[in-house]
Amino acid sequence: MKVVCIGSGNVATHFSTAFVAAGFELIQVWSKNPDHAALLANQVNAQGGSVKADINLAADLYLIAIKDDAIAEMLEVLKEVRGLVLHTSGATDLNVFPASMENYGVLYPLQTFSRSKALDFSKVPLCLEAKNEAVMLVLKKVALALSPLVYEVSSAQRRILHLAAVFACNFSNHLYAIGQDILENNELEFEILRPLILETAEKVQHAFPRDVQTGPAIRNDEQTLIKHKELLTGMPELQDLYETLSKSIKKKH
Amino acid sequence: MKVVCIGSGNVATHFSTAFVAAGFELIQVWSKNPDHAALLANQVNAQGGSVKADINLAADLYLIAIKDDAIAEMLEVLKEVRGLVLHTSGATDLNVFPASMENYGVLYPLQTFSRSKALDFSKVPLCLEAKNEAVMLVLKKVALALSPLVYEVSSAQRRILHLAAVFACNFSNHLYAIGQDILENNELEFEILRPLILETAEKVQHAFPRDVQTGPAIRNDEQTLIKHKELLTGMPELQDLYETLSKSIKKKH
Repeated sequence: MKVVCIGSGNVATHFSTAFVAAGFELIQVWSKNPDHAALLANQVNAQGGSVKADINLAADLYLIAIKDDAIAEMLEVLKEVRGLVLHTSGATDLNVFPASMENYGVLYPLQTFSRSKALDFSKVPLCLEAKNEAVMLVLKKVALALSPLVYEVSSAQRRILHLAAVFACNFSNHLYAIGQDILENNELEFEILRPLILETAEKVQHAFPRDVQTGPAIRNDEQTLIKHKELLTGMPELQDLYETLSKSIKKKH
Repeated sequence: MKVVCIGSGNVATHFSTAFVAAGFELIQVWSKNPDHAALLANQVNAQGGSVKADINLAADLYLIAIKDDAIAEMLEVLKEVRGLVLHTSGATDLNVFPASMENYGVLYPLQTFSRSKALDFSKVPLCLEAKNEAVMLVLKKVALALSPLVYEVSSAQRRILHLAAVFACNFSNHLYAIGQDILENNELEFEILRPLILETAEKVQHAFPRDVQTGPAIRNDEQTLIKHKELLTGMPELQDLYETLSKSIKKKH
């Protein structure tokens, strides 16, 4: 299958590389920034381009990995193509596609991509939605070539996934950062906490988080809760966070 | 070195196994529950015991891994031993040891242990505190035989470590659990979120969490923040948590 990649950021880069590794032919990388387009195009042996009129309209697959608010405009350019057009956005509904378009769908990766960190694409859950069942069949084949973790997910469910990901990942990372602050304010290095963070995440790979909750709140260890609040004296925001989260744990269990 | 292990829970079990693997000789496992003592003793080829008067007082090393509030009483039994007596508690100060005791210290593992999950002890940070420098030298040798991740940490710093661990790990796990709830309430399986949770923790193994924060709050993406709060309609507690954490992220960055 001949693929055109629209976008040159983290998501575009990881997808392009994964497509090539899976035996797809990347024929073009388009980005509004010509340097970025050329850079990624070069990596995957494709042509670069930054002019919309130059986009090859005869590809089998179009992967759109650009900012959410630029998707609709790009679809205007692609509205006549016969190939499968996919966006990769968690927050954009299927109805962004013009109904007249022949083949379209969503290929949303529920993963966090860093430019600096290599990622095993076989560990990326891919959430699929398609115009109809015939398109879904094709989309599934494409997705399964990239990762075994393939899920059919509606637009409404995709919104929920994104919300759950904010709690489990964005907010967790913020709590790691608070841990870092607390340590550094007391001449301790963040390094010492890293193995525990990793083990906490590894633990829920084969168990459910609600079954492995630990800590003073679930034990109703009031003495420790009081001591911790004392240690946070002068940091009303962290005291508040500590209290809110502890209460939430107690309420849940 | 001949070791007596006092306790038979998760921490005692993982330490005992690690001691044996490192070539120490486990001579006795004591627990107030004779069955538990026998079970662990059997695993590590030691004698079991559940009567305090039967504790072998001629060992080189005593590892105390029992409930915090039982430590002082156990130290009464051990007060005359010449071997090195160590407790493993994050929340218990060094001054729990009688000053008259010859060799004592703390060997606190900053890790979460599960009975059901094997753990690579070389990934367990060990936090050390000792009666004096001479004891610290011995304690360091013992600790380095178990793990390369060895830190000298005062009683005050140990309290801080515990507090940071509550934020980074206990609270993170609770956020995973909230993610699980949100998914299950919408007919989505928690499984789909697992790779993202793991990658989020892996990302901070070589970076600092404050440098890799992502999500709608740090992007000041008000539209998504509003949509998410709408999705949480009827769940005031989660709305509150969402708002508190988002505000905290915005304030930090």
